[in-house]
Amino acid sequence: MTSVRLPGRSAAVDSGEHGLLLGVDFGGTKMAVGVADGQGRLLAHERVPTHAEQGAPQALERALTLAAKLVAAHGGTVDAAGIASPGVVRPDGIDLAPNVPGWERLRLAEAVRARLGVATVAVDNDLNAAALAELRLGALRDADPGLVVGLGTGVAAAVTVRGTVLAGHHGAAGEIGYAVSGTPWPGTMLELEFSGRALDGLAAELGVAGGAAGLADRSGAPGALRAALLTRLDELARHLVTCCLLLDPQRVVLVGGMAGSELIRGLLTDRLTEVLPHRPELVLSRFADDAALLGAVTLAREAVPAQV
Amino acid sequence: MTSVRLPGRSAAVDSGEHGLLLGVDFGGTKMAVGVADGQGRLLAHERVPTHAEQGAPQALERALTLAAKLVAAHGGTVDAAGIASPGVVRPDGIDLAPNVPGWERLRLAEAVRARLGVATVAVDNDLNAAALAELRLGALRDADPGLVVGLGTGVAAAVTVRGTVLAGHHGAAGEIGYAVSGTPWPGTMLELEFSGRALDGLAAELGVAGGAAGLADRSGAPGALRAALLTRLDELARHLVTCCLLLDPQRVVLVGGMAGSELIRGLLTDRLTEVLPHRPELVLSRFADDAALLGAVTLAREAVPAQV
Repeated sequence: MTSVRLPGRSAAVDSGEHGLLLGVDFGGTKMAVGVADGQGRLLAHERVPTHAEQGAPQALERALTLAAKLVAAHGGTVDAAGIASPGVVRPDGIDLAPNVPGWERLRLAEAVRARLGVATVAVDNDLNAAALAELRLGALRDADPGLVVGLGTGVAAAVTVRGTVLAGHHGAAGEIGYAVSGTPWPGTMLELEFSGRALDGLAAELGVAGGAAGLADRSGAPGALRAALLTRLDELARHLVTCCLLLDPQRVVLVGGMAGSELIRGLLTDRLTEVLPHRPELVLSRFADDAALLGAVTLAREAVPAQV
Repeated sequence: MTSVRLPGRSAAVDSGEHGLLLGVDFGGTKMAVGVADGQGRLLAHERVPTHAEQGAPQALERALTLAAKLVAAHGGTVDAAGIASPGVVRPDGIDLAPNVPGWERLRLAEAVRARLGVATVAVDNDLNAAALAELRLGALRDADPGLVVGLGTGVAAAVTVRGTVLAGHHGAAGEIGYAVSGTPWPGTMLELEFSGRALDGLAAELGVAGGAAGLADRSGAPGALRAALLTRLDELARHLVTCCLLLDPQRVVLVGGMAGSELIRGLLTDRLTEVLPHRPELVLSRFADDAALLGAVTLAREAVPAQV
């Protein structure tokens, strides 16, 4: 069947057929692509490695190929696409995305429009997308304000206030990876102290196999490994204390690979409990690795032009 | 003339006479009381010392006496009162207000209602009140998000998002004085490092007369005094960097006694400029010491029951 898209009214909807939504989550380590029905329910999704060291263009190319395959398999019209990306997304590129070389020069929305023929494409920062998913479908549906903390390849946050994700004046709210601690001023950057990448480095330095995850696994009991991890975790905790004091969030949601470690969650909870006069609930996202992908689908859903 | 107040409609308004608004700003060092016309324009205001060391009840009593005097001098009906107080204001008391002994047990709204016969009394945190004044009348009228940083007897902040001041889940947003830095965890509290009170202590320790202001005055040139001040200021700057990264504010407004020091503003600006990838404008409140008082009047104005 051929579907003709008219402005403001979809031929697919006219015939009773619902269009598809496409979501793409670009991460520093992995990328996820999903197709969903018009209500945002995932019909299929796949995850592939980013191969960041091979640069941004090949990653984008593979993601688009995967998207085209998934869309074709479901044989529908894509009403809108949502893209979650690290960094600060501008129309002509992306700022503050150091983990994939060349990422800053990509025009993601344009590439999806051109390759997949989707007119409506919404792009946002990956943590903001994850926060949108928590707000609409997850732990922040009934909490305000909300704070989402992403502990993945990098470290970042997102803020939700009265039902929306805070963009910030330059679209850069939540970029706490650039926070500084230690003397002399400005000391070290948080992302170099505590992030998947930073802890991978620490694990290698300490001769622990398995990177950040291996280090967390082997730090269950007190000892040198745990002490080394704690020094880094204390840096994260300090900045999260400041964020919680500023916002007084009802709930803090942890997402990303390292948030899955019960040890890391436990230690963070202890530290926040110790110093905060008003304690937020600290919970793990129920979406595991899919928070940003679900957020990308939600971005798409909310970008679909209103049916007149 | 006798003015009878009817529910939902003011007799004073009926007769063409506008009721007054009353604002009270309780500070750790000084208290301000002002009366304003129905549009919030200050008609008169006075400032008196808090004498914090003599406890909260005498401070409240003197503020109420002053308020009664100012209202009587303007011979009108008070339509509503607004009160700005340090700490987290609850109906039955105030949390996190350590600078005036006994403050936590005061019921400010009740006291104003009983003593001045004002039915409508709005109470908020002093920095939140200052932020409301900036939002309606000052530097945040055309900026979003906004961050207000109060450098007075204590240190605190307030956040503005889309035209309102962020309260936080427990009404405690902005209490960054409890932020922690330094090793071993949790290190020191920001308010003990950088606040009017903390710098008064540092000045005494260094044998500098005139407290915090004297120390700032004598730190213009490099030297031991400036180095000592900088160590403290770096702590503040670190936490403000984290706050700016989290919110990406368009503008940061400094209020409070210590914000008046050009040296302190200059050093803070240098530090934020050095590390923030997206820099907010950093400005001094144009309200000098009156930001919280104007905020209290604005609280009163916005609390006046709608005229049916």
